[in-house]
Amino acid sequence: MVNQKKIAGEKACEWVEYGMVVGLGTGSTVYYTIEKLGELVQQGLKITGVATSEQTARQAEKLGIPLKSLNDVVEIDITIDGADEVTGAFQGIKGGGGALLREKMVAEASRLNIWVVGEEKLVDSLGNFPLPLEVIPFGWKQIKRSLEKEGIQATLRTQQNKEIYQTNNGNYILDIVNQTFTNPIKWQEKLAQVPGIVEQGLFLNYVDIIICGKADGEIELIKK
Amino acid sequence: MVNQKKIAGEKACEWVEYGMVVGLGTGSTVYYTIEKLGELVQQGLKITGVATSEQTARQAEKLGIPLKSLNDVVEIDITIDGADEVTGAFQGIKGGGGALLREKMVAEASRLNIWVVGEEKLVDSLGNFPLPLEVIPFGWKQIKRSLEKEGIQATLRTQQNKEIYQTNNGNYILDIVNQTFTNPIKWQEKLAQVPGIVEQGLFLNYVDIIICGKADGEIELIKK
Repeated sequence: MVNQKKIAGEKACEWVEYGMVVGLGTGSTVYYTIEKLGELVQQGLKITGVATSEQTARQAEKLGIPLKSLNDVVEIDITIDGADEVTGAFQGIKGGGGALLREKMVAEASRLNIWVVGEEKLVDSLGNFPLPLEVIPFGWKQIKRSLEKEGIQATLRTQQNKEIYQTNNGNYILDIVNQTFTNPIKWQEKLAQVPGIVEQGLFLNYVDIIICGKADGEIELIKK
Repeated sequence: MVNQKKIAGEKACEWVEYGMVVGLGTGSTVYYTIEKLGELVQQGLKITGVATSEQTARQAEKLGIPLKSLNDVVEIDITIDGADEVTGAFQGIKGGGGALLREKMVAEASRLNIWVVGEEKLVDSLGNFPLPLEVIPFGWKQIKRSLEKEGIQATLRTQQNKEIYQTNNGNYILDIVNQTFTNPIKWQEKLAQVPGIVEQGLFLNYVDIIICGKADGEIELIKK
């Protein structure tokens, strides 16, 4: 059986050139990108990585990919990341892995953004996947309550051991469930105004190229 | 000499009724409100406070004011807080004390918001006071750089010992300086879209009553 994540993830390495600063996403598809970049670095490729999570930083370090923090680079040449859902309008939901905030900050600083996905991630409209909100622990219940007043259902993300999941920034995640986002720009504006929502997982104006691995082994490139 | 902060701060206690949940702001004017509430509690007033900072929580605890966390109350009856600047249009800048995010979350959950100020805080337009942004440490330099590209000057807040100031939420503060905010709503919308800016100090739609202490000992009430 074809590993769609692997073929998409590895394909993205073709955009990485010698000397580049490369944003490294988080998740099970970009995992293969990072593994492949590690091989290339061992063969002589020189790049500087910027990790979007501690998990990714550990993987990159193990592979010998030199890292800098986002603060310590002026610009990122290219960022390769995954997505939980993406439409043909280049709008997506990210944050299943919990790294949405750092991912968005890195995407914002990048000249080119590539997403690597298996074909099941391509959707007509957003919302089959829950929309994660990174929220301040101080008032997360208030945020949940005020969403519920408007009929929006949100669940606090927990770990397998039932403890509350904490992001690398020390915040919690509320996942908006049972909601379609037919007008994601309106949702973005609305959520941006709620105090205590640090970031939300709608990425509406970031991705330039989608690399999609298909079940038949083909790779589809979707460019803006 | 009249202590304008004290007369304004104490006056606000007249709005506090038996049994209320009271949001307690942060800063040198609402300090007097909390002191006075402490006296009233010792005389038998029953209230539940919700503190907007650890500093305020310590003051309230010392005075015997019972506290609950924002998460543990459904609604706040009244919040009394200070402001760094406020206009006749009931728009203000807050965050000189660094508590802007928790202050805004508490204000959002409150049915009535009162600000207590000395008359020097009343301004015609916002911007003599720096506008604080609470930002994620992971990428604060990127945020500073992207503001600078647009000609917006921002300085990282430090403590007296030169170490970086950290908010109660573990974030940094960038203060936007040398900037007037003649269209604060536009600024709010703009800043809300920058990943990594957790909150900003423009409070545009919160305050219901301004209690202003004047140099001549008079107290001016400005109601919406």
